[in-house]
Amino acid sequence: MNSKTADAASGRNASDSPAGKGERKALAEKLLRWQVPEAGADGKKNGKACSLADFDPGAKPFSSGDKARDKETVDALALELDGLQNLFYADRRYRLLVVLQGTDTSGKDGTLRGVFSRMSPLGVHTAAWKAPNEDERARDYLWRIHRKVPAAGEIMVFNRSHYEDVLVPPVNGWITPAQTAERYQQINDFERMLSENGTVILKFMLHISFKEQGERLQERIDDATKHWKFAMGDLDARRQWKPYQQAYEDLLNATSTPWAPWTVVPADSKTHRNLMIALRVRQALEQLDLRYPPENPALKGLVVQ
Amino acid sequence: MNSKTADAASGRNASDSPAGKGERKALAEKLLRWQVPEAGADGKKNGKACSLADFDPGAKPFSSGDKARDKETVDALALELDGLQNLFYADRRYRLLVVLQGTDTSGKDGTLRGVFSRMSPLGVHTAAWKAPNEDERARDYLWRIHRKVPAAGEIMVFNRSHYEDVLVPPVNGWITPAQTAERYQQINDFERMLSENGTVILKFMLHISFKEQGERLQERIDDATKHWKFAMGDLDARRQWKPYQQAYEDLLNATSTPWAPWTVVPADSKTHRNLMIALRVRQALEQLDLRYPPENPALKGLVVQ
Repeated sequence: MNSKTADAASGRNASDSPAGKGERKALAEKLLRWQVPEAGADGKKNGKACSLADFDPGAKPFSSGDKARDKETVDALALELDGLQNLFYADRRYRLLVVLQGTDTSGKDGTLRGVFSRMSPLGVHTAAWKAPNEDERARDYLWRIHRKVPAAGEIMVFNRSHYEDVLVPPVNGWITPAQTAERYQQINDFERMLSENGTVILKFMLHISFKEQGERLQERIDDATKHWKFAMGDLDARRQWKPYQQAYEDLLNATSTPWAPWTVVPADSKTHRNLMIALRVRQALEQLDLRYPPENPALKGLVVQ
Repeated sequence: MNSKTADAASGRNASDSPAGKGERKALAEKLLRWQVPEAGADGKKNGKACSLADFDPGAKPFSSGDKARDKETVDALALELDGLQNLFYADRRYRLLVVLQGTDTSGKDGTLRGVFSRMSPLGVHTAAWKAPNEDERARDYLWRIHRKVPAAGEIMVFNRSHYEDVLVPPVNGWITPAQTAERYQQINDFERMLSENGTVILKFMLHISFKEQGERLQERIDDATKHWKFAMGDLDARRQWKPYQQAYEDLLNATSTPWAPWTVVPADSKTHRNLMIALRVRQALEQLDLRYPPENPALKGLVVQ
């Protein structure tokens, strides 16, 4: 049993101890290196733009070097997140929106299972976004998204999201670069509004290599029990790898904001991907200074007859 | 039968004839005088701010001077709007959102009946906004609004709207002036996004005098068949008349934008209120240059076996 798990079980918070504080600070600095710098008010970067090439999909910056030990840590973190989520739910001052984006096979489903499945389904919800249906196409692309934003005390995890609307349409030439830029601004405004009204937003780009995707797709083709995960369209999207990577780079640069930053997650290793996302989510929840609601004085001395 | 009705029946558009064009231009100029000037990019007016005192609630600028004749014109316009709505529905390139705001008894229900009730309910929808329920309060205030925005080819009329969220909370001190200003910006961003994605937005402030409201409330109290329209809370709101008028003035100045302008409608006269709103809606629909979708060549010569 990991020391973090012991802390969670005892109700103490590891970040409260001096050693815990030092550990959290070092972690925060390390996580920040994988966060996409904020876009300036003019939509441009100060200095050079972020390049996806700067992020190695095979890196394992948060690994102990021992895969089995990393897996144990992920399990312990998932339990810790369950404790934090209980408090988050009781507190009800915030909502948490987690966005998972990445190409096919990048591990969005695996993240849901590995990081969020220990939390109570009462307080954690997920929405998987497919191509819009007729009802959704008849409205602006943010309409269906807004319907699914988390309520007070809820955690909502988006498996894909409104960012598909600045990936698929521009890559396929259905909208112009000017329209794509317009959407970046609309998305930033929308997310800022959510944030100003009490929603914490974390966005993760699950970053895998072309080689790793090839192997994972091949596995789905070779293994009959994984055929259900495969669609012929996945190969079309793979043929468009470069334009999709470019579209990702563009959106990361345009929509990483103070109120809804992007974290690029090296995702060739599934264990490391889960480890890093769990650490970032824990950090965000711990920074909220969550608390149980104040006692109700009216209940003091009340005797149920 | 009014010449406009004849035009609608024949499928011709009055605005196509030289006389019609002149009439429309004069109307447009007259309507513009009741439109709240656009807020500058910095959220301030160029020159002086609009004052509600500049708009006389008893004015009848669009009246012929003969009430019976005005009523006939409203009926003819309602029929004309039905024709335009059919075309709007077939065209499907746009959505129309009409916002009706105004204090109690200002005539929001009456406008729905008088102006929009001739259109097919297939293409016209209304949403009446009350105090938010628990599910709605648990999210940002624009969440429930976004769920109800019109789909392609649809006309949606809001009876009250998200503007209640910059009226009731600031007047009652539930949110600070800074938070109210933040909401103005959020609303402008939200409406701009809707507009950029194909929604035409018309906002009407139904402007009645304190005296007229007093008479209408008294009628609801004295006439037992109108008791259902009355709530004790209406009298509380009436006591807050001045702060509410100020809150209206502030929001009109902050949220009249090129993409979603406010029109102040003198509403002490019910007939004139309907007449003016019908004229403004017709103008907006006519400006869209609506057309039936292009013929489908695949259907040419097709014989059903």
